[in-house]
Amino acid sequence: MLFAVRMDVDIPRDLDPAVREETVAREKAYSQELQRSGEWRHIWRIVGQYSNLSIFDVDSTDRLHEILWGLPLFPYMQIEVTPLTTHPSAV
Amino acid sequence: MLFAVRMDVDIPRDLDPAVREETVAREKAYSQELQRSGEWRHIWRIVGQYSNLSIFDVDSTDRLHEILWGLPLFPYMQIEVTPLTTHPSAV
Amino acid sequence: MLFAVRMDVDIPRDLDPAVREETVAREKAYSQELQRSGEWRHIWRIVGQYSNLSIFDVDSTDRLHEILWGLPLFPYMQIEVTPLTTHPSAV
Amino acid sequence: MLFAVRMDVDIPRDLDPAVREETVAREKAYSQELQRSGEWRHIWRIVGQYSNLSIFDVDSTDRLHEILWGLPLFPYMQIEVTPLTTHPSAV
Amino acid sequence: MLFAVRMDVDIPRDLDPAVREETVAREKAYSQELQRSGEWRHIWRIVGQYSNLSIFDVDSTDRLHEILWGLPLFPYMQIEVTPLTTHPSAV
Amino acid sequence: MLFAVRMDVDIPRDLDPAVREETVAREKAYSQELQRSGEWRHIWRIVGQYSNLSIFDVDSTDRLHEILWGLPLFPYMQIEVTPLTTHPSAV
Amino acid sequence: MLFAVRMDVDIPRDLDPAVREETVAREKAYSQELQRSGEWRHIWRIVGQYSNLSIFDVDSTDRLHEILWGLPLFPYMQIEVTPLTTHPSAV
Amino acid sequence: MLFAVRMDVDIPRDLDPAVREETVAREKAYSQELQRSGEWRHIWRIVGQYSNLSIFDVDSTDRLHEILWGLPLFPYMQIEVTPLTTHPSAV
Amino acid sequence: MLFAVRMDVDIPRDLDPAVREETVAREKAYSQELQRSGEWRHIWRIVGQYSNLSIFDVDSTDRLHEILWGLPLFPYMQIEVTPLTTHPSAV
Amino acid sequence: MLFAVRMDVDIPRDLDPAVREETVAREKAYSQELQRSGEWRHIWRIVGQYSNLSIFDVDSTDRLHEILWGLPLFPYMQIEVTPLTTHPSAV
Repeated sequence: MLFAVRMDVDIPRDLDPAVREETVAREKAYSQELQRSGEWRHIWRIVGQYSNLSIFDVDSTDRLHEILWGLPLFPYMQIEVTPLTTHPSAV
Repeated sequence: MLFAVRMDVDIPRDLDPAVREETVAREKAYSQELQRSGEWRHIWRIVGQYSNLSIFDVDSTDRLHEILWGLPLFPYMQIEVTPLTTHPSAV
Repeated sequence: MLFAVRMDVDIPRDLDPAVREETVAREKAYSQELQRSGEWRHIWRIVGQYSNLSIFDVDSTDRLHEILWGLPLFPYMQIEVTPLTTHPSAV
Repeated sequence: MLFAVRMDVDIPRDLDPAVREETVAREKAYSQELQRSGEWRHIWRIVGQYSNLSIFDVDSTDRLHEILWGLPLFPYMQIEVTPLTTHPSAV
Repeated sequence: MLFAVRMDVDIPRDLDPAVREETVAREKAYSQELQRSGEWRHIWRIVGQYSNLSIFDVDSTDRLHEILWGLPLFPYMQIEVTPLTTHPSAV
Repeated sequence: MLFAVRMDVDIPRDLDPAVREETVAREKAYSQELQRSGEWRHIWRIVGQYSNLSIFDVDSTDRLHEILWGLPLFPYMQIEVTPLTTHPSAV
Repeated sequence: MLFAVRMDVDIPRDLDPAVREETVAREKAYSQELQRSGEWRHIWRIVGQYSNLSIFDVDSTDRLHEILWGLPLFPYMQIEVTPLTTHPSAV
Repeated sequence: MLFAVRMDVDIPRDLDPAVREETVAREKAYSQELQRSGEWRHIWRIVGQYSNLSIFDVDSTDRLHEILWGLPLFPYMQIEVTPLTTHPSAV
Repeated sequence: MLFAVRMDVDIPRDLDPAVREETVAREKAYSQELQRSGEWRHIWRIVGQYSNLSIFDVDSTDRLHEILWGLPLFPYMQIEVTPLTTHPSAV
Repeated sequence: MLFAVRMDVDIPRDLDPAVREETVAREKAYSQELQRSGEWRHIWRIVGQYSNLSIFDVDSTDRLHEILWGLPLFPYMQIEVTPLTTHPSAV
């Protein structure tokens, strides 16, 4: 089941630099693990923004929420979720 | 070069039904030809909307405009274009 | 899997009154059948609006789209879909 | 009398962690007590958001305000209230 | 139980003038009857707009919806409802 | 001359509690004095918000501004002013 | 008493050209009469828009509404009213 | 050449009171000097807001920017500029 | 004096095709004449939109309005004007 | 390949003045180098705003993102990117 997710990141300027670095590193590892497992199908950077557009393929909305809520950068993100389905013109 | 494109379709109610059917059919063929050629990489229906989210892979903004301007349903669409780039966390 | 769906209806004033009446009747039957089958869990009228707030319980986003796309009033509606999950405070 | 209420939570990052934890715990107890009494009929988490969509069944707008104003997380919430009524298609 | 209601009127230009006049007259009679019964407590014109701000005092949201849905100009209005309660500073 | 005024209050979390309490008390006294003098005709709490909807009856826009500017909570408020006039349907 | 008023004009394309011309002429005469009487203090065209920004000096909101409601182009305008007062820095 | 300019002021609460007072005083002097020279043609306070609506008469957009950028309160303002021209109905 | 102008075109579907073609041709000639004279410095198509972003270099806001008001497609356009000035980082 | 980019700058008030000055100087040098190389084709200040409108001419969206992400003021900017293409009326 597919969902488009846009994440806009805004890390507070006064976050401890070590915490920041460690959180961004955990975010990357977390994302890559889910990409490898196939649940996080695509991730693209939006040009000129600290934002990404991603496509998730999950079994349920419960699972999607679990993934998003667990993002290390979750507290510093605005997240927008758009449910998708197969398009009749898709080949 | 990747672009996310959202298309919201609103075909006027008073369009001749034959014209409507023929235009929708041409739109489908047009889309599928570009999907097969690789320029229209993904197309998903947005749940509950006469809308799609698509990913294009084109050589230039000129080419992207040419494709979008040529959509048979172009006169009945709102189109939003978001330039993408590789995400540093992509595997 | 739960989704909140808001539907805002705007039937064109020049729709043939018989068509309008028949479409609204079909909409009601369609909704009630899905309520009885359990997929359309709740439907409430929003005060002062020709709108409803509904809760759907479906197996997939594909199924949700199928239901919404099939609404007899679909061509005259704005639809907004919000994916839901269990709340940790729910009893 | 039914009302849909959407609550978007934004707890300040610099809130004392003990205060935060204690406030969230009080919020949960407060919510569950009202769920058991029947006034807080439904609470769902919105996927990917620190937000909920709830349905309240109260005797008056005075009572609804009393409940919302008393939420332990009230100072950290944006709240939107939508009055509901029975839908003519409800079974 | 008090509700603030804003109504923005937009009567289609091609409405038959006799129908328009008759509908506006019925709207006025409908409003005045409810003002006399005490349910429509206040009605003010918004300066420079074909709009009003009104205060309703009703027993339930069901009753408020019944009143608003029955407005002769309902098909030509945008309506916004805001639930009110007693203010602690009110004398 | 009537004006509808909506005030949305947002007192900073780090305001000294004694200052906060004293300011809120002064606000209440200020409001009640103007209610008694007749210039502040109505004040209602908006359900679920730290906001009010008020009706002022003043001799001029100069006087309205003087009142609003003098509100003890003015620095912590968003204020929206809507000029009103008699409605032709008012009884 | 001063009010800033912005008027955005949108005359329907299918209005009879003679009616259009006559209405625009009446609008101009109406405006100029009020400019000469001193109530319509300023009128400026907004660059690139069929819109104006005007300053009115009237005795009451009732009078302002009477003027605006009477504009020959009123049915084809969006109007926004902003109450003004003397600025403490004005010389 | 005329421009309408709206300035919304939001001085940070933690600005040193002496700096605040001095900045506001400089702002007033700066404004009055330009009013006397004729470039700042009008300044009105917007009722209920820490905002003004002003009309500037300058020789160029370069000059307008120079004036606005030099405002002592510039760092604490949101500024919106609307180019104006003579209205054909102006007397 | 520079201005950025965004024009969004929406030609009504029921415009006579010959009128449409002739108007678009006149628009092109009008634009090219002003480009050659130097007042219309740049015109770019916005990808995926029937819109352009243009840069004008004119002697006054009066002249800019004269140009825009005279656009053959003016009745079918939304126009947004942004005054520009030299940037201190420009080489 | 052309892109219009709008940058709105908001440097935090509590940034160390030396850091601020140094960052602004680096921003200027960075911009001028790219202007000289031809990738940053135009930069204009927006009147009355700490903002610019720029035109970039780059080989890819990847390169555009690299440039924007590397802006010394990037952490303090809102950036909006609009892809452009040749306009058929351009001379």
